[in-house]
Amino acid sequence: MPVSESVEVTGHLMDSGILARVLDDVLGYGADYRIDRLDVGKHHEDESHAKLTVTAEDDEALQRLLMRLQTHGVNQVDPGQAVTRPCEHDGVFPDDFYSTTNLETVVRLGTAWVPVENPEMDCGLVVEGSRVRTVPVSDVRAGDLVVCGAAGVKVVLPPQERSDSGSFEFMSSTVSSEKPQALLVRQIAEKMREVKAEGKKVLWVGGPGIVHTGAQPAFTALVHAGYVDVLFAGNALATHDIEAALYGTSLGVDLAQGKGVEHGHEHHIRAINTIRRCGSIAAAVEQGVLTGGIMHAMVQHGKDYVLVGSVRDDGPLPDVHTDVIDGQRAMRDQIPGVGFAIMVATMLHSIATGNLLPASIPLVCVDINQATVTKLADRGSAQAIGIVTDIGLFLEQLVRELVPGY
Amino acid sequence: MPVSESVEVTGHLMDSGILARVLDDVLGYGADYRIDRLDVGKHHEDESHAKLTVTAEDDEALQRLLMRLQTHGVNQVDPGQAVTRPCEHDGVFPDDFYSTTNLETVVRLGTAWVPVENPEMDCGLVVEGSRVRTVPVSDVRAGDLVVCGAAGVKVVLPPQERSDSGSFEFMSSTVSSEKPQALLVRQIAEKMREVKAEGKKVLWVGGPGIVHTGAQPAFTALVHAGYVDVLFAGNALATHDIEAALYGTSLGVDLAQGKGVEHGHEHHIRAINTIRRCGSIAAAVEQGVLTGGIMHAMVQHGKDYVLVGSVRDDGPLPDVHTDVIDGQRAMRDQIPGVGFAIMVATMLHSIATGNLLPASIPLVCVDINQATVTKLADRGSAQAIGIVTDIGLFLEQLVRELVPGY
Amino acid sequence: MPVSESVEVTGHLMDSGILARVLDDVLGYGADYRIDRLDVGKHHEDESHAKLTVTAEDDEALQRLLMRLQTHGVNQVDPGQAVTRPCEHDGVFPDDFYSTTNLETVVRLGTAWVPVENPEMDCGLVVEGSRVRTVPVSDVRAGDLVVCGAAGVKVVLPPQERSDSGSFEFMSSTVSSEKPQALLVRQIAEKMREVKAEGKKVLWVGGPGIVHTGAQPAFTALVHAGYVDVLFAGNALATHDIEAALYGTSLGVDLAQGKGVEHGHEHHIRAINTIRRCGSIAAAVEQGVLTGGIMHAMVQHGKDYVLVGSVRDDGPLPDVHTDVIDGQRAMRDQIPGVGFAIMVATMLHSIATGNLLPASIPLVCVDINQATVTKLADRGSAQAIGIVTDIGLFLEQLVRELVPGY
Amino acid sequence: MPVSESVEVTGHLMDSGILARVLDDVLGYGADYRIDRLDVGKHHEDESHAKLTVTAEDDEALQRLLMRLQTHGVNQVDPGQAVTRPCEHDGVFPDDFYSTTNLETVVRLGTAWVPVENPEMDCGLVVEGSRVRTVPVSDVRAGDLVVCGAAGVKVVLPPQERSDSGSFEFMSSTVSSEKPQALLVRQIAEKMREVKAEGKKVLWVGGPGIVHTGAQPAFTALVHAGYVDVLFAGNALATHDIEAALYGTSLGVDLAQGKGVEHGHEHHIRAINTIRRCGSIAAAVEQGVLTGGIMHAMVQHGKDYVLVGSVRDDGPLPDVHTDVIDGQRAMRDQIPGVGFAIMVATMLHSIATGNLLPASIPLVCVDINQATVTKLADRGSAQAIGIVTDIGLFLEQLVRELVPGY
Repeated sequence: MPVSESVEVTGHLMDSGILARVLDDVLGYGADYRIDRLDVGKHHEDESHAKLTVTAEDDEALQRLLMRLQTHGVNQVDPGQAVTRPCEHDGVFPDDFYSTTNLETVVRLGTAWVPVENPEMDCGLVVEGSRVRTVPVSDVRAGDLVVCGAAGVKVVLPPQERSDSGSFEFMSSTVSSEKPQALLVRQIAEKMREVKAEGKKVLWVGGPGIVHTGAQPAFTALVHAGYVDVLFAGNALATHDIEAALYGTSLGVDLAQGKGVEHGHEHHIRAINTIRRCGSIAAAVEQGVLTGGIMHAMVQHGKDYVLVGSVRDDGPLPDVHTDVIDGQRAMRDQIPGVGFAIMVATMLHSIATGNLLPASIPLVCVDINQATVTKLADRGSAQAIGIVTDIGLFLEQLVRELVPGY
Repeated sequence: MPVSESVEVTGHLMDSGILARVLDDVLGYGADYRIDRLDVGKHHEDESHAKLTVTAEDDEALQRLLMRLQTHGVNQVDPGQAVTRPCEHDGVFPDDFYSTTNLETVVRLGTAWVPVENPEMDCGLVVEGSRVRTVPVSDVRAGDLVVCGAAGVKVVLPPQERSDSGSFEFMSSTVSSEKPQALLVRQIAEKMREVKAEGKKVLWVGGPGIVHTGAQPAFTALVHAGYVDVLFAGNALATHDIEAALYGTSLGVDLAQGKGVEHGHEHHIRAINTIRRCGSIAAAVEQGVLTGGIMHAMVQHGKDYVLVGSVRDDGPLPDVHTDVIDGQRAMRDQIPGVGFAIMVATMLHSIATGNLLPASIPLVCVDINQATVTKLADRGSAQAIGIVTDIGLFLEQLVRELVPGY
Repeated sequence: MPVSESVEVTGHLMDSGILARVLDDVLGYGADYRIDRLDVGKHHEDESHAKLTVTAEDDEALQRLLMRLQTHGVNQVDPGQAVTRPCEHDGVFPDDFYSTTNLETVVRLGTAWVPVENPEMDCGLVVEGSRVRTVPVSDVRAGDLVVCGAAGVKVVLPPQERSDSGSFEFMSSTVSSEKPQALLVRQIAEKMREVKAEGKKVLWVGGPGIVHTGAQPAFTALVHAGYVDVLFAGNALATHDIEAALYGTSLGVDLAQGKGVEHGHEHHIRAINTIRRCGSIAAAVEQGVLTGGIMHAMVQHGKDYVLVGSVRDDGPLPDVHTDVIDGQRAMRDQIPGVGFAIMVATMLHSIATGNLLPASIPLVCVDINQATVTKLADRGSAQAIGIVTDIGLFLEQLVRELVPGY
Repeated sequence: MPVSESVEVTGHLMDSGILARVLDDVLGYGADYRIDRLDVGKHHEDESHAKLTVTAEDDEALQRLLMRLQTHGVNQVDPGQAVTRPCEHDGVFPDDFYSTTNLETVVRLGTAWVPVENPEMDCGLVVEGSRVRTVPVSDVRAGDLVVCGAAGVKVVLPPQERSDSGSFEFMSSTVSSEKPQALLVRQIAEKMREVKAEGKKVLWVGGPGIVHTGAQPAFTALVHAGYVDVLFAGNALATHDIEAALYGTSLGVDLAQGKGVEHGHEHHIRAINTIRRCGSIAAAVEQGVLTGGIMHAMVQHGKDYVLVGSVRDDGPLPDVHTDVIDGQRAMRDQIPGVGFAIMVATMLHSIATGNLLPASIPLVCVDINQATVTKLADRGSAQAIGIVTDIGLFLEQLVRELVPGY
């Protein structure tokens, strides 16, 4: 039997295209809608407000549609009370668990609206007393009380940066390699300074292309200048960085002569073996074995890094989390305090980080391959700003903006 | 003090460009060469033989150059005896360990040339009595005897397919989207039939693009017809396959109407939760929860699959190896008996598999993205044949060749 | 002094995102808006209607904004009478000429709304008595009366295909290589049959990739079966087709063995010289010199083709329009009667054709390169449906759908 | 009846892979070879010399194979006298005309070896008295004496840059986005300074991406600093440059705010109309209509530019050659004196220019799209160095290297 629910959404619905996406999703889920009311902001700085009735074929379909619409900031007009059910087994949610968005979320418990502590997409909501937190399915335990259905849950759409007079104007731009790139670099530099001034952390996510494009010195300078508080990467970035530091002569010559770094050679596996002998990257720095490069600078300045392995890794380095779920947990621990995230030359780790970040953290993704940048936004990191450009020149120019005299 | 060694190589040195790459590598390693003798095959079906003296600045550099040259099939004229040294710690090779290629390799122990049991690149060679096997650095144990330096090791270059009259003529082609693709499909089909006729296994490595391009039915038909003996994949392929099988109505409609599958929606996390509740994919099949699709067919026919996790995974499915090194071990266990490997729509798992396969196993990599295909060959899987094409149409056409009446 | 105008638009404003783009353009042109009224279609099959007041800094800016908004189907509430001014020089419009869209357009002359005969974007509107036609700037003559400003001009937004139950459902999809391609092929085949049944022409625009991917036989079969009424191409497609037909043995072997066709060799320039000696492609067919392939089939069936040169051409073939503006005129002459256009493997000629086609003609663009497909839509051919796939497999599968027994 | 010829080649045959390509081509043309002698340079700085007998099925096949092999620098041991035949018709060569390479070429006329005046690929050789020049097929006239067959023609392979100690070391590198790009920029800057110091011209070939990426100011600064002697482009670069100069306020704001430039809007057609009214770009500068940007700077400094039209052009600007063969002639006239060519963000004009340039002129191709760069080399411009990078950042960094205080 068809069931209906009244929902509403407030924000820049028109010029952002949100309403179009909401209506599209309703039809895509096999449901239907009626627009009951639409108060359009008269001017472009005004917010709009829409009220719709959505109708699905049964309650299960309706609940799932309601969760889906919340990814666009659409809430029930009368959300009621949250329903919780205990998990029966470790690592398994109840069937009708509420699947989270990465937006700010509040849950109705009794008479109070309780904010969710750490918004993250594709998780469940676990209620403990008067607290609510997101928990990934792998970490839920039997007996945990999990919010089920969409009742009693509201999300808050982030304000449109665009209507601000802030420095981050390009945020609303679509992905393109046809942009005035030099300007984008300046805006990112300014944003980083702001974030640091507010006492927040800058999170970098990087791939080995940083080393291959000759940007190791530029990136190392950013570490020294304090613009890299946390680094997420895989085995490859750290390995190639260390390899370049250890076999400076030969590889240095290659890089300095523009000959590039061939894959599959024995230098990298030998570099890994050397660090394994030392016990860890930090131990290699302490023992005087590793004396330069990005990882050395991170250790020297006591900065945090999380290296997570992948199935294609050689070695790996001893610091690498070989269990990817453990790795995700280590990454999650570093999210609090992050004010800005920048992802460079890695699709795998960019998407992994995008999965963990709340939508409130500004996010820039830089890659020479447009597909990487597009894919991140497609996966739900709607706040991501994509820049299709050359990594080497990008980092070179960024460091010139941020580090006087570089 | 500069040291020299006399090396030699036999094969189709001229028309394959091998000799050019050898000389390039000598210079790239900062060493030098003298061509002492070059017997060129007079006709194109004749093999050539070259003898060179290579000179490096010291013995360490020389040994490493010699290992490098072995990736091209170049051996020492007088290889002498293999030198072994015990590992001091678990997971660490001696400093000057011999770094393996993926070519057939023999090791001189006493008076015998002992073949290496399982050629794999970037490993060490562990000697146990009269046996020699490749061991990745993570699996070596303190006390294991490891071959050090290049002495006493010879590799065998695979024969050029090109000079054959075999069916796999396109092997020598470079990567290109401008190829008569229909013909390539027919050649792959024929190769698969040959491999099955020889009693060997066909190994598939696949990404979620198989489902997204609507090729799930085609791929499932290949499983039923017996052309998928082993499947390597990540969490994503299995999840999207199961999601399509479980939520057939809605998703089926999407696929049938050509609307594609959006990322980041809640279906996939719900599909994962369902399988987690069952305990495993096989249990879900047994319990009648999972009744169609690729993974269902694999279970039904008792075929092996290895799913290895990555840092961007949601869930994951209970069958997924969350420890990537464990995952590599599980993949390695499936290699013996494989006669042909085909990689479709996944860069991560293609490279991972390429790392493990001996060069003697023919390897085809199919992707719509040229970079994926190029990268595989760059990483040392020189035998890889790249096909830049559309996954959906490719699998559709392949199944028409292989499964009469499809 | 700021000036304002009241404008309106009717259609599927919400779920198509049109209104968002309209408001974006107002701001992008440095103007501002007030939404005076918005009647939203309650259900998804209902049309919406919006009325806005737009304000620009002066009349010139306003007029240009109004023209811009017409590309989205936005008209003045009170359009008034069209203003015309004579051109002073050949090939030059008056400064404030009305710049056309590719939408159906009507012009207010006296008491009548006169439809524009041949909608085409980026042209002027020339009034002759009671007739109005689009004229490109290069073809306007001194004394021609040209519509100036946006007054007296209205456009008609094409109906949304999506709300139809028609066969062409995927029309609203965004570009993606992750689509069930086999289904798309079937839908295109069905569309072609419909168009032929209506007595309209199928227009193909093709690049040399058709020959390089081995699809020459498939495409030739489509010509023989009557599914290619008009062909737009450059020198390269015709040359490579003829080259393959003339030097069948050697090239045929190459293609049949999957070795591909190398660029820059002497076969193509020799093929061009041969046809130049004959005088034309048709003469070469008549003289028995050219006996197979695509161009031969076009001549044999009396089909029209327009070959237009480019600066990178060798030769060219005698049939090629070396003057690109003449070439555009020849293409324009073929547009009437076209019911469906399909563009395969050519960015240059696809965009050229997109520039000439009215928005009412359905348009499919097929390429393995996503950028080609995206660029076409960016250039104003909003009706274009992009398919990112392999040309060879696409044509092979299309001909199997359309030509029984192929 | 099979016929044979003895041929030879000298140069860095081994480490450049040339010999492999020669042997490959012999087989590809359906012929066969015997290696009669191979004197290999002992050290990497020594040249090698090879002598082969090639056998083809008949004389016509042999002559065409010999022409083909000349693209690799392979000449007949006993080339004999050149044979010439008169053209029977305008624009048509004799059937067995010698098809040129872009290498330095000499022709045996009587007792003298006469150098060809202007090497260009895919042309014929016209003999006038004691002079020989390349003529494209479109420009040959009835009665012209054209060299036929490969007899009496020798080519000279350019020296390997690699064995030099010159500044242009990266020349032998393959295309890659994984290169230390900052270094490449410095090397190009140095090369430009050298070329200018030798009194030669720097030729630029550019696409509209230069404007879209915000690099108009950087490029304009290069013109002012004297590093742009000749510019080849299409209608689009000039139009977008002029559009940005004319509508500075609105478009300038767009560019300065990083919003990019949308395609298909009316600004560009209005800019074209404005210049058409002036009569030419130079007239627009003179009349004070055009006061900034790239084209303005070219006019101001009296630099040459050749704009050639394409079938997708709007307008075009009055300076554009609408006849592409006329355009090629105008480009050809600018080649003498060019010492360095750099191609940025345009596939069409890059290949067009590559077709005209002798192999002796160093050539760099810069594009964010790897396919553009690869295609140029595939088309026979073997000397082309490809750089896959971001145009905007590349030009920004280049001008910083070349123009102090920018």
